[in-house]
Amino acid sequence: MTADPTLRREIPDATVARLPEYLRTLTTLAEKSVAFVSSEELAASVGVRSAQLRKDLSHLGSYGVRGVGYEVETLALEITRALGLTQNWPVAIVGMGNLGHALASYSGFVTKGFRIVALFDDDPSHVGERIGDVSIRPSADIAACARELGITIGVIATPAPAAQSVCDALVASGVRAILNFAPSVLSVPPGIDVRRVDLSTELQILAFHAQRKLGLTSGTVVPR
Amino acid sequence: MTADPTLRREIPDATVARLPEYLRTLTTLAEKSVAFVSSEELAASVGVRSAQLRKDLSHLGSYGVRGVGYEVETLALEITRALGLTQNWPVAIVGMGNLGHALASYSGFVTKGFRIVALFDDDPSHVGERIGDVSIRPSADIAACARELGITIGVIATPAPAAQSVCDALVASGVRAILNFAPSVLSVPPGIDVRRVDLSTELQILAFHAQRKLGLTSGTVVPR
Repeated sequence: MTADPTLRREIPDATVARLPEYLRTLTTLAEKSVAFVSSEELAASVGVRSAQLRKDLSHLGSYGVRGVGYEVETLALEITRALGLTQNWPVAIVGMGNLGHALASYSGFVTKGFRIVALFDDDPSHVGERIGDVSIRPSADIAACARELGITIGVIATPAPAAQSVCDALVASGVRAILNFAPSVLSVPPGIDVRRVDLSTELQILAFHAQRKLGLTSGTVVPR
Repeated sequence: MTADPTLRREIPDATVARLPEYLRTLTTLAEKSVAFVSSEELAASVGVRSAQLRKDLSHLGSYGVRGVGYEVETLALEITRALGLTQNWPVAIVGMGNLGHALASYSGFVTKGFRIVALFDDDPSHVGERIGDVSIRPSADIAACARELGITIGVIATPAPAAQSVCDALVASGVRAILNFAPSVLSVPPGIDVRRVDLSTELQILAFHAQRKLGLTSGTVVPR
């Protein structure tokens, strides 16, 4: 496994954040056997301007063909590679309440480059339960399990008070990237990536558009 | 209820998408009794440049004070108003599997301007079950219930095959904004907003950063 110089090419974080969105549209198009997509159409599906799309994709070395656009399958493969999703990343989920259960059986993970290989919860009523091929284990097993299975990505779906200690256990066990669904801010050492998912963000964006349509004055901005 | 001219001020979609992120940071700061935040600090918490932050907030008429920054509580209130979250929007969730249950008991919704007022599922083993103050009803009740409770925002957490018919029922009942967790693309009439949540997007972004740190060559981009 040698480091590749192309890896060092800097892709801006904002571009990285849009790549999964482009990939989702491309996957849908591929399922419909669409062979080519214009930059305008692909950009519109994600809500950016086509100039932005072309700039984003230029970071991957993808430039499309004038008058034809991008080849759907090729571009999907390029984005999949750029995101590192040719790996089939082993993922652990900690916290097997309703959200943990929902995530463990979320088919989107499987089809998009991830394998759920370990599940943890300290509730004795959950330990031992099987979801698909995986049995829920107590979180005391995190260290042994993470090393054995080479887990790099951990998902935290515990209540807020448990999240930091779970995070510490994951990091101590070699996990380098954490997706945090718990409503709490996690402290991690340098070099560990944490992304926090707040399920209310999307509702808030919808509320903005809903109030504008309804013309509600109580939602207006009062300039200072 | 009169339309207010300030409502017509165009706020770009990309700005709207960042407002909940700014609000999340401001809420955390307010909880810690922090009175002021610099544009640099607030921008960094969301991963944008401070020039972008200032431009975003200028759409709300918020300009901050040079050398002092933004007053945390005032700015939080302005964003809350801009997003229309002073309403306490009544929300319905359809599909009460694990994800629906997780969403129904998600405390983040309650604190952020939303009230879950109706839950629907067609599984007889779920109908009648209470989550908090709300009983799960059969989806045949969507129309009556949505009108009675003035529901404007619907959350779809059903399996993919049921999502379109649920969406149609919600729209026919006056719902104007839909948050779709089902892995399917919904057709809606003009004027209805749909946002699709794909829980794998955040994992894909993490995978990108993880592969770069690990220096995996299989994740590199092969320029054409």
